[in-house]
Amino acid sequence: MDPFGGRSVLVVGTGLVGTSLGLALTRAGIDVRLADAKPEILAEAVRLGAGRPEPAAAESAGPAALAVVAVPPEAVAAVVGEVLAGGRAEYATDVASVKVLPTTQVRERVADPGRYVGSHPMAGREISGPNAALADLFEGRPWVICPDDGTHQQAVTRALAVARLAGAVPTTMTAAEHDAAVALVSHTPHLVAALMAGRLAGAPGHEVRLAGPGVTDVTRIASGDPELWTEILTANAAAVRPVLDALRTDLDRLMTALEAPVAGQPVLRELLRDGVDGRSRLPGKHGAEHTEFATVIVAVDDAPGQLARLFADAGAAGVNVEDVRIEHAAGQPLGLVELDVRPGAEDELAASLRERGWTIRG
Amino acid sequence: MDPFGGRSVLVVGTGLVGTSLGLALTRAGIDVRLADAKPEILAEAVRLGAGRPEPAAAESAGPAALAVVAVPPEAVAAVVGEVLAGGRAEYATDVASVKVLPTTQVRERVADPGRYVGSHPMAGREISGPNAALADLFEGRPWVICPDDGTHQQAVTRALAVARLAGAVPTTMTAAEHDAAVALVSHTPHLVAALMAGRLAGAPGHEVRLAGPGVTDVTRIASGDPELWTEILTANAAAVRPVLDALRTDLDRLMTALEAPVAGQPVLRELLRDGVDGRSRLPGKHGAEHTEFATVIVAVDDAPGQLARLFADAGAAGVNVEDVRIEHAAGQPLGLVELDVRPGAEDELAASLRERGWTIRG
Repeated sequence: MDPFGGRSVLVVGTGLVGTSLGLALTRAGIDVRLADAKPEILAEAVRLGAGRPEPAAAESAGPAALAVVAVPPEAVAAVVGEVLAGGRAEYATDVASVKVLPTTQVRERVADPGRYVGSHPMAGREISGPNAALADLFEGRPWVICPDDGTHQQAVTRALAVARLAGAVPTTMTAAEHDAAVALVSHTPHLVAALMAGRLAGAPGHEVRLAGPGVTDVTRIASGDPELWTEILTANAAAVRPVLDALRTDLDRLMTALEAPVAGQPVLRELLRDGVDGRSRLPGKHGAEHTEFATVIVAVDDAPGQLARLFADAGAAGVNVEDVRIEHAAGQPLGLVELDVRPGAEDELAASLRERGWTIRG
Repeated sequence: MDPFGGRSVLVVGTGLVGTSLGLALTRAGIDVRLADAKPEILAEAVRLGAGRPEPAAAESAGPAALAVVAVPPEAVAAVVGEVLAGGRAEYATDVASVKVLPTTQVRERVADPGRYVGSHPMAGREISGPNAALADLFEGRPWVICPDDGTHQQAVTRALAVARLAGAVPTTMTAAEHDAAVALVSHTPHLVAALMAGRLAGAPGHEVRLAGPGVTDVTRIASGDPELWTEILTANAAAVRPVLDALRTDLDRLMTALEAPVAGQPVLRELLRDGVDGRSRLPGKHGAEHTEFATVIVAVDDAPGQLARLFADAGAAGVNVEDVRIEHAAGQPLGLVELDVRPGAEDELAASLRERGWTIRG
């Protein structure tokens, strides 16, 4: 059923997120009005089926139930003010990846700020623009909604409805809580990965050639677009700073411990244990508590179809593979495939795969 | 052919590494003599087929061609001295994960230190002991050998032969170069992951629940055993310190930049670009230069056999999957499977999978 009773949703800004949302809402049977400052971007979103161009006030059957403003953080307040003042929508939300900046500016600059609620669908891609849009971009992803004391309930209700229609998992917190959370789980990890990867930039080849899967995992996200991340970190600097302060305090304790390694062992041990504890708090599969799986390591060569054969054999063993990683062995046309299974199932799977001729590493 | 002309290799210390090496050398047709301070550990290694117990001097047909000393770093020098002085082997190497400590101690404490060469097979497992041993533990892994000016060529030649017989990829550098290399590509990444994970330890649940694949990658290795890592870092503190010093310098520049984010953008951008550069230097598949694959993202549900069906369908498309990751969507019984393929093959694969009824995300 349509929570908007046939009324329209207006999407302003038809880039990756706006167009993906238009596709998702259209698929859900919602009438989507689209607007973008760039006519060619708007036309592309319409062509892709994300909705229809927003009609002129005269032709429109009244304001949209909700406007979703999908423009850069610093532009949100101006566009929200325009949309609400112009009677183009009754309520408005945005999708910026920081929330204090736009919500503060809306409160300062918009006539009736209670008609706006900030939100952040935590989904994205490396590529941008309407052509990168996906109807199910938001499926299963958290969508944070940030009301404050002045927010009209209807704004929250309608933002929640849009998040659910897009297949996301909505959750509410204050804008400050949101910015602190993404500073911890997204922005600081990106910086830590970048700083570590930066150490490799000037390193001699004989050192880098010894790199294994560990440092590859730690630095993976450091490949992200420096321009985009400069914007994000600039907008959320206030929330990132305290996390980095705490990190530097621990780094200093660590460095002091390594000055006199033997005497420093208790501190070293404590910091490493904190790491194990923190790691164990990360959401596991399906957002459930983090679970340690048992791992069966299989050696496979590069021939096409090997993975297909491996998973077919695993399936034949009646064991569900919960997760999989491929670790490529240096200097050899051979990969180690790590199959994660529920603890207890590993021996059965290993035995069954051995029978079928696979080399099991563990 | 047997580079030792039928002569024996002595393995002292039959834990994970010693027993794995015994299994590999035995499989390669080498006569392996085994010794361990703990009789039950030795018996287990013999039972597993890693070799035969070292015979008493009287019965032995002369010294082994090479002794591989697989004991903790701080014990290496004593055991090497004993083995060489006792005529149990003509030459000796070790397998400790740090090299300056054992090589220095051998030079100080052993009568003829030139008969020893330090080495480090860069392979291991989370679990230890002879029962965790694998005949192909070293296959395709780097095996660093660290001769110095006083090292006899025969010691190097025989250590290289053992590394090759075990299926490893041998490479030589000085002990100091080795310790600096592992400080950069292994020990510092572990500390960085632990410090980042440590920030999650005390964080509120609503923050940790927003964690996505990025922070999960960054902190993966932080799950490592704190005791083991305390030992490793204590032994290599001197080489880790300068890497942490440089990292801290960058962290300070970053924090200063974030104090005045707009003015600081050039510094922020530079640090992020260094990260991209460093990341691009990591060895890619098969130790080749790092290659960016094209990725096809497929939504799969949890039913057993789904992965088998997916890889079978990918195989049917005639596209070889180079790498695979599973990203579990929060709060949904759904996973996103990221299939890496050679750039150019992604459209063909996506189209073919769509035809077969799969939901493609990108």
